Amino acid sequence: MEEVSTARSRGGVQGVYRHQSLATDCAMTFSVFVPPQAARAPAPVVWYLSGLTCTCANVTEKGEFRAAAAEHGLIVVAPDTSPRGDDIPDDPDDWRFGQGAGFYLDATQQPYARNYRMYSYVLEELPELIGRNFPADMSRQGVFGHSMGGHGALTMALKNPDRFRSCSAFSPIVQPTTSGWSRPALQKYLGPDEATWRAYDATCLIADGRRFKEFLVDQGSADAFLQDGLKPWLLREACEKAGIPLTLNMREGYDHSYYFISTFMSDHIAWHAARL
Amino acid sequence: MEEVSTARSRGGVQGVYRHQSLATDCAMTFSVFVPPQAARAPAPVVWYLSGLTCTCANVTEKGEFRAAAAEHGLIVVAPDTSPRGDDIPDDPDDWRFGQGAGFYLDATQQPYARNYRMYSYVLEELPELIGRNFPADMSRQGVFGHSMGGHGALTMALKNPDRFRSCSAFSPIVQPTTSGWSRPALQKYLGPDEATWRAYDATCLIADGRRFKEFLVDQGSADAFLQDGLKPWLLREACEKAGIPLTLNMREGYDHSYYFISTFMSDHIAWHAARL
Repeated sequence: MEEVSTARSRGGVQGVYRHQSLATDCAMTFSVFVPPQAARAPAPVVWYLSGLTCTCANVTEKGEFRAAAAEHGLIVVAPDTSPRGDDIPDDPDDWRFGQGAGFYLDATQQPYARNYRMYSYVLEELPELIGRNFPADMSRQGVFGHSMGGHGALTMALKNPDRFRSCSAFSPIVQPTTSGWSRPALQKYLGPDEATWRAYDATCLIADGRRFKEFLVDQGSADAFLQDGLKPWLLREACEKAGIPLTLNMREGYDHSYYFISTFMSDHIAWHAARL
Repeated sequence: MEEVSTARSRGGVQGVYRHQSLATDCAMTFSVFVPPQAARAPAPVVWYLSGLTCTCANVTEKGEFRAAAAEHGLIVVAPDTSPRGDDIPDDPDDWRFGQGAGFYLDATQQPYARNYRMYSYVLEELPELIGRNFPADMSRQGVFGHSMGGHGALTMALKNPDRFRSCSAFSPIVQPTTSGWSRPALQKYLGPDEATWRAYDATCLIADGRRFKEFLVDQGSADAFLQDGLKPWLLREACEKAGIPLTLNMREGYDHSYYFISTFMSDHIAWHAARL
């Protein structure tokens, strides 16, 4: 693991790091905020999964999470959203697919299956690296994310309820199997058999019997993607049917940007802190 | 004035705007945060002046000022740091001069005198525009900034103590007439007669009799520019000699970045709010 940069912030340290990933077979960059409390005792870890087109830089620079993370003593890790590099299969003309659009799944189709393994990367390889290199209490982990990363957080929590003690999301893609902006990606990564897509769809996972103890979701009412891509009411229906407590906050006038995320970031950090 | 973008944030609105400036004879972009309180009554205005290489985007995205500005009910305006455009004289190889490096002065030398008039732009033209287009109480203004923008804030306050009720700075260039990274710019903008440079140097202005009621300065101890470019002790000496109260906070381990600025941003916003 190589240090790209570190800076003191809010009494802790915000760092950016790079390592050679086995899961994605390429160099991966991620950011870690270590709060001041971690100098005394290992701190819980919250994973922030970013949305389409993002790297770890977006939330690290614009997310405004460090004030609350330092207050509550949480390590916040932000992975990248896909494998990266000149030799990684990509479609530079499509921002909803390829580099920047890994959808937190393990691809099964060629030529993507070798590198597009963000599910294994985020769930297995990176936690192992974090546990080895940072003062982290890996027995206490939460996960949250934005948009495609909200999808990632919900599906990872549903599939790993013993790993994660808390889960929340900003404007998540709750049903990628039907959403116009994710179907083409699922087709390419997972192939034409849509039954295999259900393992990466929060509403399908719930319908298929997966459970998590509770979710917090914030969604802007002025989000341009609300009606076509996000549809949080589908998650509400699924959670109601399954008896999963869901706090769904519709935020009047807010859009899909980090201006929205940063406004409600401290609420989410506090939610995780209370459950970690 | 043209709207580039707006987004709801912290209950208010973060906007980016563009207009054709008479002072700089080019299109200028700036950002304005309007807090929720301004819907009921005109709000005080705090000017944030950015550092070398920055546009209004840096603080708008990374400054983390909106939480405190919304709490205290302050409008925050962030101008650009220089005139911009293909036909604006520049030296693309020197980040300490030309576009991104206006030093908040009115240039007297050719070919810069036509466009490099950031002092007049920030002090006269932009306030007039803000007063006309936003719910601003222009009788209550404060000014702060970072690095080159800290220099701008200090010098503007010292030269206009009736305009500004409050002034603070993050890691300001307190003595640009002797600092290695500003002398070449002053020479090009103002000419070889160094006596004319004193009007844009906080320590010289104080030595020459200008006064302001009090300053707040935060400075990181791990700032790579501390010894050569910033030298806050020169401001302390000048203020002590002149009887100007200066709160100079040396922040252990912090650097020159927005990770430093954002950590202490809410302290500065509160400082201005208490004086506006």
